[in-house]
Amino acid sequence: MAKRNLYLKTTSVEESIEKYMDALEMLKPKTEWIRAYDALGRITCGPIFAKCCSPLFNAAAMDGIAVRSKDTKEARESAPLTLKRGVDYKVIDTGDPIKSPYDAVIMAEDVIEIDEDTVQIIASVPAWNHVRPIGEDIVAGEMILPTGHEIRPVDVGVLLASGNIELEVYKKTCVGIIPTGTEIIKPGAEPKEGDIIDSNSGMFAAMVMEKGGMPEIYEIVDDDYEAIKNQVLEAVKQQDIVVVSAGSSAGTEDYTVHILREIGQVIIHGVAMKPGKPVILAIVQGKPVIGLPGYPVSAYLAFENFVYPVIERLNGMKTKKRKMIQAVVSRRMVSSLKHREYVRVKVGKVGDRFVASPQARGAGAAMSLVRADGFCVIPQNSEGYEAGALVDVELYNDEDAIEKTLVSIGSHDLILDLISDQMSAQFGNLYMSSTHVGSMAGLMALKRAETIIAPTHLLDEETGIYNESYLKRLFPNENMALIKAVDRIQGIMVKKGNPLAVQSIRDLTRVRYVNRQRGAGTRVLLDYLMKKEHIRPEMIDGYEKEAATHMAVAALVASDEIDAGIGVKSAADAFGLDFIPVGVEEYDFALREKDLQLSQVQGLIEILKSAEFHEKLDRFGGYHYDHAGQIKMIKKN
Amino acid sequence: MAKRNLYLKTTSVEESIEKYMDALEMLKPKTEWIRAYDALGRITCGPIFAKCCSPLFNAAAMDGIAVRSKDTKEARESAPLTLKRGVDYKVIDTGDPIKSPYDAVIMAEDVIEIDEDTVQIIASVPAWNHVRPIGEDIVAGEMILPTGHEIRPVDVGVLLASGNIELEVYKKTCVGIIPTGTEIIKPGAEPKEGDIIDSNSGMFAAMVMEKGGMPEIYEIVDDDYEAIKNQVLEAVKQQDIVVVSAGSSAGTEDYTVHILREIGQVIIHGVAMKPGKPVILAIVQGKPVIGLPGYPVSAYLAFENFVYPVIERLNGMKTKKRKMIQAVVSRRMVSSLKHREYVRVKVGKVGDRFVASPQARGAGAAMSLVRADGFCVIPQNSEGYEAGALVDVELYNDEDAIEKTLVSIGSHDLILDLISDQMSAQFGNLYMSSTHVGSMAGLMALKRAETIIAPTHLLDEETGIYNESYLKRLFPNENMALIKAVDRIQGIMVKKGNPLAVQSIRDLTRVRYVNRQRGAGTRVLLDYLMKKEHIRPEMIDGYEKEAATHMAVAALVASDEIDAGIGVKSAADAFGLDFIPVGVEEYDFALREKDLQLSQVQGLIEILKSAEFHEKLDRFGGYHYDHAGQIKMIKKN
Repeated sequence: MAKRNLYLKTTSVEESIEKYMDALEMLKPKTEWIRAYDALGRITCGPIFAKCCSPLFNAAAMDGIAVRSKDTKEARESAPLTLKRGVDYKVIDTGDPIKSPYDAVIMAEDVIEIDEDTVQIIASVPAWNHVRPIGEDIVAGEMILPTGHEIRPVDVGVLLASGNIELEVYKKTCVGIIPTGTEIIKPGAEPKEGDIIDSNSGMFAAMVMEKGGMPEIYEIVDDDYEAIKNQVLEAVKQQDIVVVSAGSSAGTEDYTVHILREIGQVIIHGVAMKPGKPVILAIVQGKPVIGLPGYPVSAYLAFENFVYPVIERLNGMKTKKRKMIQAVVSRRMVSSLKHREYVRVKVGKVGDRFVASPQARGAGAAMSLVRADGFCVIPQNSEGYEAGALVDVELYNDEDAIEKTLVSIGSHDLILDLISDQMSAQFGNLYMSSTHVGSMAGLMALKRAETIIAPTHLLDEETGIYNESYLKRLFPNENMALIKAVDRIQGIMVKKGNPLAVQSIRDLTRVRYVNRQRGAGTRVLLDYLMKKEHIRPEMIDGYEKEAATHMAVAALVASDEIDAGIGVKSAADAFGLDFIPVGVEEYDFALREKDLQLSQVQGLIEILKSAEFHEKLDRFGGYHYDHAGQIKMIKKN
Repeated sequence: MAKRNLYLKTTSVEESIEKYMDALEMLKPKTEWIRAYDALGRITCGPIFAKCCSPLFNAAAMDGIAVRSKDTKEARESAPLTLKRGVDYKVIDTGDPIKSPYDAVIMAEDVIEIDEDTVQIIASVPAWNHVRPIGEDIVAGEMILPTGHEIRPVDVGVLLASGNIELEVYKKTCVGIIPTGTEIIKPGAEPKEGDIIDSNSGMFAAMVMEKGGMPEIYEIVDDDYEAIKNQVLEAVKQQDIVVVSAGSSAGTEDYTVHILREIGQVIIHGVAMKPGKPVILAIVQGKPVIGLPGYPVSAYLAFENFVYPVIERLNGMKTKKRKMIQAVVSRRMVSSLKHREYVRVKVGKVGDRFVASPQARGAGAAMSLVRADGFCVIPQNSEGYEAGALVDVELYNDEDAIEKTLVSIGSHDLILDLISDQMSAQFGNLYMSSTHVGSMAGLMALKRAETIIAPTHLLDEETGIYNESYLKRLFPNENMALIKAVDRIQGIMVKKGNPLAVQSIRDLTRVRYVNRQRGAGTRVLLDYLMKKEHIRPEMIDGYEKEAATHMAVAALVASDEIDAGIGVKSAADAFGLDFIPVGVEEYDFALREKDLQLSQVQGLIEILKSAEFHEKLDRFGGYHYDHAGQIKMIKKN
């Protein structure tokens, strides 16, 4: 089995950060002078004082005339006072200087014009009336911005107004990113079998930029001890921080930790967090060098936890706390006592409570990060949470957007993508979030009030009617509704040209099949068709292999390992597969009657009825939409 | 009085935006293709679909061995199964492809190594054990990002992983900024009398960047009809939006509206908002041209209200809603029925409620924007709010930061700047916000629980003791405390060289004086000294002229209009003034005893005792700090 870095001991997240930051004690921020014009988002490294006053002189605050206030004492409505231009007053505009002998301004609106050089006033004015004294806004010498302040547009304004044309700020932290791995290829390169696209480096670079740093991505280095060592040594010379991507776990080709031990000091190897465990925190020639795992979710979480604090130490940026909310967790989440686990969740407002639905927990599930509204943490000493428990969720997303999101949990279909996209494009402030668990699990989530709608296509074998009887049975005491969506054609997907000549359900017994998960409408359909044909599960090779969506089935059928699966025509088309229809079914949205009035649900209905949506379905093929957007009430018993 | 644009009619904010956006109906966003690497913060202009699967193939999810699942059926702890390398298994690392005949992975930890080519296993594994099927994370053809999505670092990762090396996004909106005005000078140029530094253009440019646009600042154009017209016409050719800075009010030199009427169409001139009224919303050659007022606060608010929506229309960005909180308003705010008023407020958490203190409301008070934590809106049909009313505040600042802010309302001293700066620099997550209203008004704010501390220096004429008797009298039923800060020298500030030979308070009767506001400790001191010398207010020229801080007094004494004022030595030094001491006084922080335990207050005490703070005071001069940080309890009667 060759040598493997079997790191037996892992350190807790807090202890790891603390030990590493202590070891980096000597690391001091650098500063630089920049133009105020370029200062947006930069951080002051010391207090900024005004170099001049604003206004620079006593100035008129209004358009009008400048007068001597003591001259005006006798003016009143019954006895207007006449003033002569050049003698008693001067015409001025807002911003003009007010100087001796004048000490007050009367607004144009309060002046009666007699002729070119004569006016009358009907009220006295005190000294400094409508005069902005020198320094009224900014006084030279006063502090205008404190240390550690992130420059906003208004700050740029006062910097310029107060004579700070340049200012000293923390230098942008330079972060070098070294992708490693013989199997890793640059995005855009044609992949050979076994190749993995280096998507992490681009993500890291964006994370560096988001923290106000300057990323540099180096060329990909093969799994070669000397090559990696030389690249790290070169990067350490050029950068403030070096990140080594992948090569931090215990695989046979994972040299990073050995290299960092040779050329520097490894402070931490292995952190008790999941995903993200195989992190290396090291120091080489006084510079922080951090080894990150290759799985995208591990990489992201490890970067957040360990690289961000080092960048912040260097550029003075303060951690922006994310909004925390409390949400009911929709599914049981089991975790090990051995580590702290970060579970990505989708969050929806259902009724008056937030519901958090755990997403795919695999370290490779990058889409779980994209789709997540936030995450919750299962502490190291906890075994997890039961369904229904109240958990703290740290939000990536605006609370406001979450409240306007149509939460959907249930069966998967490609039309959910279309609806979700049309929803945000058409309404601007409405969103849709879909979790794909199959029809029956969706209805159970609806039952537990964890979703607003549940997309479902469940056939009642006795009546031949879709969905209705399931709602009646599951919600005997509630008024429910079905929003009719599409009739869709399900069929057997096989490779282009149908090389194994699959014609019917019976033919599945002689091919390598991939199934859908238990409770999925498509699986219910298969079971129904198998029963009619007297086919038992063990007769189908792959009946126990499960994929979660139509598209996932299609992708597998397109690969070398699988010959057939059941799904919708649009998925088969997406992968250029042949398609043998086995039936038409009704794919609808189940919900509580009272939720029909929600703006998100109204938006959904509008979209289902729209010509734009129907055109997209026509382009897909395999759908009928005669009843799309119609509502069927299902009253309680 | 020459011609003035007396716009009599103003339009409400909503109606103005609506009319203008309707008139801009034809304005369509432009799009462009960019690299995913450069996509951070950009907005998708259509749905993005995955071009390839991730993983690209069935891949090992763990380091270990690849096996045929059906071979493992008999393995159990009591009867280990022996497997031969190359025949029954293959050693694989995480990410390696899993192909026929293998269909499952056993983790390295679960494998017993017998020799180089032989292992034993003690449990069976199902098909696909620790295998990530092709497309498990991303399936080719599925939508990964919807329309109108702002790209985050995780999105960059999945874009690259899904084969989207480039993507189409909304083009950055180009905004041309034309500063106008003969009195306007470029920041950095040496100002002549009457000159105004163009700080707005830089602020606008930063605002454009913050909204994801590309600003270009043109050269300053004099108040010349043809020159402005030509510059606008040129800018309209080059930019998506043109902003004409200043020249939008009704002064004699305000040509902008006439020019825009000549070369285009003026949709709105004058909006019922304060500050910000003199806004021009126009269209020239199909491009939006917006005239903004010159006062910085008006300019800022008008830009937010009218330029932002146009940028958003063009670049697909969604308005980020600011956090709203409810706060008790600390002072009466009167407003006119004629307009909607935006009042900048400082917000502090005092006890369990938020308190909003209105800041300077002048359109020229740019520092009110810098210091503000948010603003509240007085609607057009409202006359304002009484003190104590609950108002909605839209926050600029983090709620979290506000909760950790030491709210200070009371007397002004330069040490407040020092403390505020040291507070954020030393503690990172503690802040201080000061409002300068004078000692007595500060104690009244403390009484109404609108501040945590009240800096005060009030002399009891009978006992000669500072501050204590005032606290006893104002808070007879509460346990209070004084945190001793500094003894400071007050004196008469006069011009360098003391040209008018001012030696004592009596000499103030023969010079031009500037006073502090009623209730300021410095004014109490003056009144006390005047009484001793039998000087009446009307004997001093300028007794009624008020400035709000020591620094403001010093700035005025440094100008041509004023000869003398009273203040602290540090302020005199800041402006190179001569200083004639008239007394030493005790400047302390009053607070409720129970608030001594707040972390912000503990931070304050720590700073007052710190060597760093004492060194800064020594550099200032004019302060003693023997008792700094000591606490004096003042028990209830």
